Amino acid sequence: MIDIEQANETAVNRMMEARPILKGVATARDVIPGMRDNLLLHAGPPITWERASGPMRGAIVGALIFEGLAHDWESAEKLVTSGEIELEPCHEHNAVGPMAGVTSPSMKVYIIENVTHGNKAYSNLNEGYGKVLRYGAYSEDVITKLRWMNDEMGPVLADALATNEDGIDIRALLAEALHMGDEGHNRNKAGSFIFTSKLAPLIAQVTKNNDLAAKILKFLGDNALSVLNPVMAACKAMADAGHNIEGSTVVTTMARNGTDFGIRVSGLGNQWFTAPVETPQGLYFSGFTAEDASGDIGDSTITETAGIGGFAMAAAPAIVTFVSGTPQDALNATLEMYEITVAEHKYFTIPYLDFRGTPTGVDIRKVVELGIPPRINTGIAHKEAGVGQVGAGLVRPPMAIFEQALMAYAEKYLND
Amino acid sequence: MIDIEQANETAVNRMMEARPILKGVATARDVIPGMRDNLLLHAGPPITWERASGPMRGAIVGALIFEGLAHDWESAEKLVTSGEIELEPCHEHNAVGPMAGVTSPSMKVYIIENVTHGNKAYSNLNEGYGKVLRYGAYSEDVITKLRWMNDEMGPVLADALATNEDGIDIRALLAEALHMGDEGHNRNKAGSFIFTSKLAPLIAQVTKNNDLAAKILKFLGDNALSVLNPVMAACKAMADAGHNIEGSTVVTTMARNGTDFGIRVSGLGNQWFTAPVETPQGLYFSGFTAEDASGDIGDSTITETAGIGGFAMAAAPAIVTFVSGTPQDALNATLEMYEITVAEHKYFTIPYLDFRGTPTGVDIRKVVELGIPPRINTGIAHKEAGVGQVGAGLVRPPMAIFEQALMAYAEKYLND
Repeated sequence: MIDIEQANETAVNRMMEARPILKGVATARDVIPGMRDNLLLHAGPPITWERASGPMRGAIVGALIFEGLAHDWESAEKLVTSGEIELEPCHEHNAVGPMAGVTSPSMKVYIIENVTHGNKAYSNLNEGYGKVLRYGAYSEDVITKLRWMNDEMGPVLADALATNEDGIDIRALLAEALHMGDEGHNRNKAGSFIFTSKLAPLIAQVTKNNDLAAKILKFLGDNALSVLNPVMAACKAMADAGHNIEGSTVVTTMARNGTDFGIRVSGLGNQWFTAPVETPQGLYFSGFTAEDASGDIGDSTITETAGIGGFAMAAAPAIVTFVSGTPQDALNATLEMYEITVAEHKYFTIPYLDFRGTPTGVDIRKVVELGIPPRINTGIAHKEAGVGQVGAGLVRPPMAIFEQALMAYAEKYLND
Repeated sequence: MIDIEQANETAVNRMMEARPILKGVATARDVIPGMRDNLLLHAGPPITWERASGPMRGAIVGALIFEGLAHDWESAEKLVTSGEIELEPCHEHNAVGPMAGVTSPSMKVYIIENVTHGNKAYSNLNEGYGKVLRYGAYSEDVITKLRWMNDEMGPVLADALATNEDGIDIRALLAEALHMGDEGHNRNKAGSFIFTSKLAPLIAQVTKNNDLAAKILKFLGDNALSVLNPVMAACKAMADAGHNIEGSTVVTTMARNGTDFGIRVSGLGNQWFTAPVETPQGLYFSGFTAEDASGDIGDSTITETAGIGGFAMAAAPAIVTFVSGTPQDALNATLEMYEITVAEHKYFTIPYLDFRGTPTGVDIRKVVELGIPPRINTGIAHKEAGVGQVGAGLVRPPMAIFEQALMAYAEKYLND
């Protein structure tokens, strides 16, 4: 008989002992397993153009324009609906991307290596705020910025990281950032300042062009989400280390494509369990309301999967100015997550809870039994392509996917 | 009759409305009012060589070696005891310095301007950890590092800040850092990362020498106290803005020289009220104990004077790993300080206390009436010259100085 507790302990220990190091920056087609010239990766579980949300479609169009494969919406749509360009989840290629998460072959990506277990994970570069591809914007200024990031900043980041044999320890960075008011998903302010400070001497060392070095450092330092993408890839590397443990009921993927929320479970291989996404509740930027909100979108829920983000909100009371609620709500969010997880993190701790480890490793059994789905912090995209971010808030996955997963688990393990 | 409440409101409002901007870096003799070639500034109230503590003497010796005026302890001592070199408090020259605070004419200093009221304040550059002048070390490596800071880093910082007309808003930086787990005195980790991130593009812009730019950025980024000195000068500029308000009982200076703790009061001009310092209680570095501790030393209590530091410990629960105690103790420290202060800060807020303003403006009447002296976070120096930091902890000023000040106040204002 399967020892579920033992399997879960193994899974979550592997997640916690994974040590994700940022090793470099390279072009997606050169490093992401299975990447090919006619493939776009996207956030969440599998999706077709026909079922894709506004921001997902906008990001697909933008990525194809960026690649020089399309010149407008129609030509892009045709490439995808004809099957000439294929869509696959980032998660099926050891990658993750925030919001739409669209990653095309020419894009530069961060390379994270889990030096404990050897697996790697990838994520694209963060574009900052305003009209950005990941929120479904695809106008010329969006593409121009992406090209600058890819052609100017990307090679400098690659050179800078190449000078640094040890890489940047993202688990250590996160542990520090959680003591500095970050929760690692929607609030990555401290982490981004640490990241910029660690990159600064490397960038200054390798760049002969003063203007470019200054521009890159300003771009990184002014963006409180600079570190989000390497953090997500680090969480992916940690979660993947806990995946495929026979008999484990621990969730190793939570991801949304704007249409469906999908999870995968350690002991259930690569099967997705999906259901329609909820719409986040939160605070909207001036001029926008809940009417404008897209459904929940993005791979950034990999942070909650790894024990941070919404699960670590008690570490980040100032986030309530951004996602709504009070510091007490933030504390309660973390306390509730202890109910549905199997461990307290060894390395991610919360000073205000007397340095208690963050709740880590969602157990599908507990979610279903207690009727408590995970809590997620998230950005909110406009429901139409081309607009961008309209707010930030809180959301939960649909209960149905945990119930489906539990049934699949019963079928696989308990019907012998 | 004096309206004390009104006077205190004026004093503390001026402190809070002061907006200290880091405007530049220059040589002390060129910018600090009253600086002269035979003058050393030091922390705390006035002190003579004869009464000076070990770390203060060590720092004086080191500064005179740095200036090329002495070559060893004996020659330095002779210069000071003969009166050839004079000692005056930093505080009497619009300046502040951490620990021994010794600032000599050739040293580079940060220039802070309070753009609300126009007054300026100054502080030297932070040396980082280990054997450093401010803790009384004066060996060759200490002097070599000071020379590098002064001759290599200082001019780059000066050039970098000169490119940036707006300067760096230290009040805004502190407000942000208090939401990131800093209290601004003993924990300046977030602030130092913000500071490094803001300086990085400026430094990259002005430095043609890649190695030097990289070395400076690494020096700043690796030092979680990089921003302490500009923060202290900013607090000095804020506190000075509240000084000399007729009838005010608000404390505008708290400073220690290792022998005496001195305060000055807004309505009592430039008179010092002093008494022997206490010895901090805290955590010691490996190999050291309370036996090794110097008496309380440094101008860094300007942070508590301005409403941060020990007064804002509730914002910085992770500091207890450094100064001892529990997160609840940190919370209690802040709550207690509301008892003896006249305002809640408008710009410095504590997320965990539902964004309540930090307790600001110590009222000597409340201190004496309630028998509650201010709480201070501090580094602990070795009592002998030449050793350096041995720990960090908590301390309070002697009650006697508040009683003296209150008597002086009564004499000045209530005997008419």
